[in-house]
Amino acid sequence: MQTSPVLAHIDADLPNAISRLQDLLRIRSISTDPAFKAECLHAAEWLARDLGSFGITASVRPTPGHPMVVGHVAGPKGAPHVLFYGHYDVQPVDPLDLWQSDPFDPAITEGPHGPTIQARGASDDKGQLMTFVEATRAWQAVHGALPCSITFLFEGEEESSSPSLVPFLQDNAAELQADLALICDTGLFQSKTPAIMTMLRGMMPEELTIHGPSRDLHSGMYGGVAMNPIRVLSKILGNMHDDQGRITIPHFYDGVPDLPAQIAADWQALNFDTATFLGDVGLSQPAGEADRTALEMIWSRPTAEINGIWGGYTGAGFKTVLPAQAHAKVSFRLVGQQDPEAIRAHFRAWVQAQLPKDCRAEFHLKGGASGSLMATDHPIFAHTRDALGEEWGEPAAFVGCGGSIPIAGHFKEILGMDALLTGFARDDDNIHSPNEKYDIECFHKGIRSWARLLGKLAQAQA
Amino acid sequence: MQTSPVLAHIDADLPNAISRLQDLLRIRSISTDPAFKAECLHAAEWLARDLGSFGITASVRPTPGHPMVVGHVAGPKGAPHVLFYGHYDVQPVDPLDLWQSDPFDPAITEGPHGPTIQARGASDDKGQLMTFVEATRAWQAVHGALPCSITFLFEGEEESSSPSLVPFLQDNAAELQADLALICDTGLFQSKTPAIMTMLRGMMPEELTIHGPSRDLHSGMYGGVAMNPIRVLSKILGNMHDDQGRITIPHFYDGVPDLPAQIAADWQALNFDTATFLGDVGLSQPAGEADRTALEMIWSRPTAEINGIWGGYTGAGFKTVLPAQAHAKVSFRLVGQQDPEAIRAHFRAWVQAQLPKDCRAEFHLKGGASGSLMATDHPIFAHTRDALGEEWGEPAAFVGCGGSIPIAGHFKEILGMDALLTGFARDDDNIHSPNEKYDIECFHKGIRSWARLLGKLAQAQA
Repeated sequence: MQTSPVLAHIDADLPNAISRLQDLLRIRSISTDPAFKAECLHAAEWLARDLGSFGITASVRPTPGHPMVVGHVAGPKGAPHVLFYGHYDVQPVDPLDLWQSDPFDPAITEGPHGPTIQARGASDDKGQLMTFVEATRAWQAVHGALPCSITFLFEGEEESSSPSLVPFLQDNAAELQADLALICDTGLFQSKTPAIMTMLRGMMPEELTIHGPSRDLHSGMYGGVAMNPIRVLSKILGNMHDDQGRITIPHFYDGVPDLPAQIAADWQALNFDTATFLGDVGLSQPAGEADRTALEMIWSRPTAEINGIWGGYTGAGFKTVLPAQAHAKVSFRLVGQQDPEAIRAHFRAWVQAQLPKDCRAEFHLKGGASGSLMATDHPIFAHTRDALGEEWGEPAAFVGCGGSIPIAGHFKEILGMDALLTGFARDDDNIHSPNEKYDIECFHKGIRSWARLLGKLAQAQA
Repeated sequence: MQTSPVLAHIDADLPNAISRLQDLLRIRSISTDPAFKAECLHAAEWLARDLGSFGITASVRPTPGHPMVVGHVAGPKGAPHVLFYGHYDVQPVDPLDLWQSDPFDPAITEGPHGPTIQARGASDDKGQLMTFVEATRAWQAVHGALPCSITFLFEGEEESSSPSLVPFLQDNAAELQADLALICDTGLFQSKTPAIMTMLRGMMPEELTIHGPSRDLHSGMYGGVAMNPIRVLSKILGNMHDDQGRITIPHFYDGVPDLPAQIAADWQALNFDTATFLGDVGLSQPAGEADRTALEMIWSRPTAEINGIWGGYTGAGFKTVLPAQAHAKVSFRLVGQQDPEAIRAHFRAWVQAQLPKDCRAEFHLKGGASGSLMATDHPIFAHTRDALGEEWGEPAAFVGCGGSIPIAGHFKEILGMDALLTGFARDDDNIHSPNEKYDIECFHKGIRSWARLLGKLAQAQA
C-alpha cells in the first residue's frame, strides 16, 4: 500500500474535506452550558454517521453527560493497533460582540497565513480531529483498507473537565485496548515547526464563593462596618502570588521536579522568541517566577490563574451595594508529581486560613488531572517524527505543552497505553477566544501528515 | 390654622394615600439603566400632575439626563419658605430571583413591624417623598392653604450620582431660593427613634478597568507567562485595607477630623446595639478600623468599598481563559474636609503605582460630593425635634448618617441654604436590596410628622 496516491487523493478531495469540516463546525456543541445538550448529541451523531460512510463501524455511546463516539476498523493481521482520540465539544463563545463573524457559521477568510476557517472549534478540536478522519477516509478510498487497526474515540466533555471520561474508559477498557493512543489537540511550535509533545501539564479547577452578610447591603448604611466579601476575595486571591511571581500556597510546589539538563538544553536550542510570543498579545514581560525562562513557565512550571471573578453590581452605572457573596473561578496547571487532590486540599485550607470570622468559603468543583511524561522511546515516535519532517520540510521538535490534556494520563492509568500527541494548530488560532480559526494549510498538511504516518506503519510491516 | 383636624384628615385618607403611593411605585424609574429613561419621565409627569391636583403649580423640567419636577405654593406674607427635596428614581432590581414579589407590583404584606408595602423604591425614596406630599395635600384639603411657602424639588438621578443636579441648581438658583431645605431620605434610629441628621458622609465613585494582554488568552498556552489582569486587580484591591481595617491609600485620611468629645458622648448615650445591628445581617464583627466604635465607622469615618468586580469567564461551567481585562466599581464614603477630587487623584495614583509594566488602568467615572455638617442651631431644628417627639412619643435623636446625600452640600454651596434631614425608613427596609419595603406605620406617622412640623411653623407666626 503506497502513500503517494493517498496524498494525491487528499489534495484533490480538499474542497470536500473543508465542506465536511464546515458542516461539523455549524453544530453548536458547547459542552459546558446545559442549554447546548442537544447540539452535543447532534455533533456525536454527525461523527458516527461520517465514520460509517467510509467503512468504520461507529456508534454513539451514551454517558451521564455528553455521549462518546466509538469507531473500529481492523487492519492487516499482526498490524499495530492505534486509538485515535479527539473531542467534538467546544468552548463558550462569549464575548460574542468581539467576533467578526458568527462563531457557528464557518467562513473561509484570508488570514495571516493564507486562507483560514473562522469558527468556534475550528482549531480546538474539530478541525484537528478531522485531519485524522480525513486521512483514514483517503486511505480507505484509495486502497479500500487501512495499514493498521484503528479505534476512534471522540468525547464531548473535554472543555468541561471530562466528568464521564474515566468511568467510560473503565467500563469499556477491553473494547478500547490498543498499542498506543494518538491525540491531535496540540499545535506547531512557533506556528511553523511540527512538534511532538513530551510532557503535558495537568489541571485542577476550583470555583469558590465567599459568603459575608446574609443579604446585599447598602454601603450608606453598612459601609465601613460590614465585612465586604469582594474585599475578602480580592485580598485572598491577591496574595496567591508573591512579588517574584511565585505561588504562595503552602505545599504547592511539592512534587514539582527540576528540569533535566538535557531537556533544558533542547529547549534552549529551540531559540524560542519570547519577545514575539508575548508581543503578539500585547505583552512584554514574562509574568511567572522571576528565575525561569518563558518556555519553562509554559511547559514545565505549575500555575495558579484566576479565570473569572464576579460579585456585586456589574451593570451600567453605579450601585453602592455591599454584596452578600463574591465568586471566582481559579485553575491550577500541574506538573511532575503534583497531585490534583492534594493541591485542592492545600488551596482550600489556605483560603480558609485567611477568612475573617464573619465570612465562610464554599467550593464547587471536582475533578482534575496530573501532568504526564510521554514514552518517547516507543517506535511510533520515530515514525511520527519522520512523517512530520517529510510533510513539513523541517525536523519535528520534541516539546513541552502548557495545556492540560488529561486524557493522556487516563489512557496510561486505566488502559495501560502510552500516547503520542501531535497537532497542527497555530499560536494565533485564538482558541478559547473570539475569532477562533484553523488555517487551511494546517488542515491540509495535517491530513497529509497522518496519511504519511499510516504509510510508515504500512512500511514497517512490509 | 389648627393641626389636629389635619391629622384627623390624614388618618381618614390613609387608604387613598397608600393607593397613590402604589401608583407611583408601579413606575419603573431606574435611573442608572438607560433602558428605563421613558419610565423616569413617566414618574416625573405623575408627580407634577399629582402636585397640580391639590393646588401646587408644578412642572416637569428637562435636563440632559432625567427631568426635575419643580412645584411652588405661596404661604402667608412673611411666613418662612422651605424647599422640600426628594427623588423619584430607584435602584436597579437585580438579583430579581431573590424578590418575593414583582418589585414593581407593590404588595401590602405583613412585615416584622406590621403591614408594609413591598416594592423597589417603597422606602428609597418614593414612600418618604410622598410623606411630605401627603402632609401638604392634607393641609390644603382642611385649610385651603399652607402655613408657609413651599418649593418642591424632585430629582430623578439620585441613584446615579445626580449628574444634572448641580447645573440645574445653578441655572435656577433664583427660583429655588428658600430659607431652608427639608430632605426626607433617611431613617429612624435603630428602627424606632425619630432622628435628625447632624452630619452626612460624602461619596466618590470610581470604575476602573485593568488592561493586560491585547486579547483573551488560553491558560494552556499562556498560563504562567502572561500577566493576568484579574490577578493584578485582586492584588491592588486586596491591598486597599490593612489588617487593622485602615485604608492604605496615601493621603486618604487627609482632612478627616477627630470626633468632638460632645458628639462622641451623645452617641455613646444612644446605646447603639452593635451586636443586633450586625446580627440582623448575619455578621458579628465590625469590619472597619479596629480602634473605632461601630457608630463611628458608619457615621464619621471614611470608607473604601468594592461595590462590584468582574472579569474573565463567569458563566456556568469552566473556561480556562486569561482575560484581556478585569473591572471593578469602587466607592469612597467621605467625611469632614476630605475632597472628592483629591481622593480620586490619590486613588488613581495609588493604582498606577502598583501596576506591572504590561498592564494599564483606565478610570471611567466622574462626580462625587464631600461630607456635610448641618446647621443645628437654625430654629427649624427645634420645631422639627418637637414635632417628631410629639408624633413618635419619644425625643428625636441628633445622629450621624453613613449614607451620602450630596444634595445637602449642593444646597449649601450653590443656594447658600442649610438643610434639615429627617426620615422614617427602618434599618430592615432592604433599600438597594431585594424585597425593599416601607412600613405603613412609617408612612402614616411620617405624613403626620410633617403635618405637625407645618403646624409648628404656623404657630411660630401666630
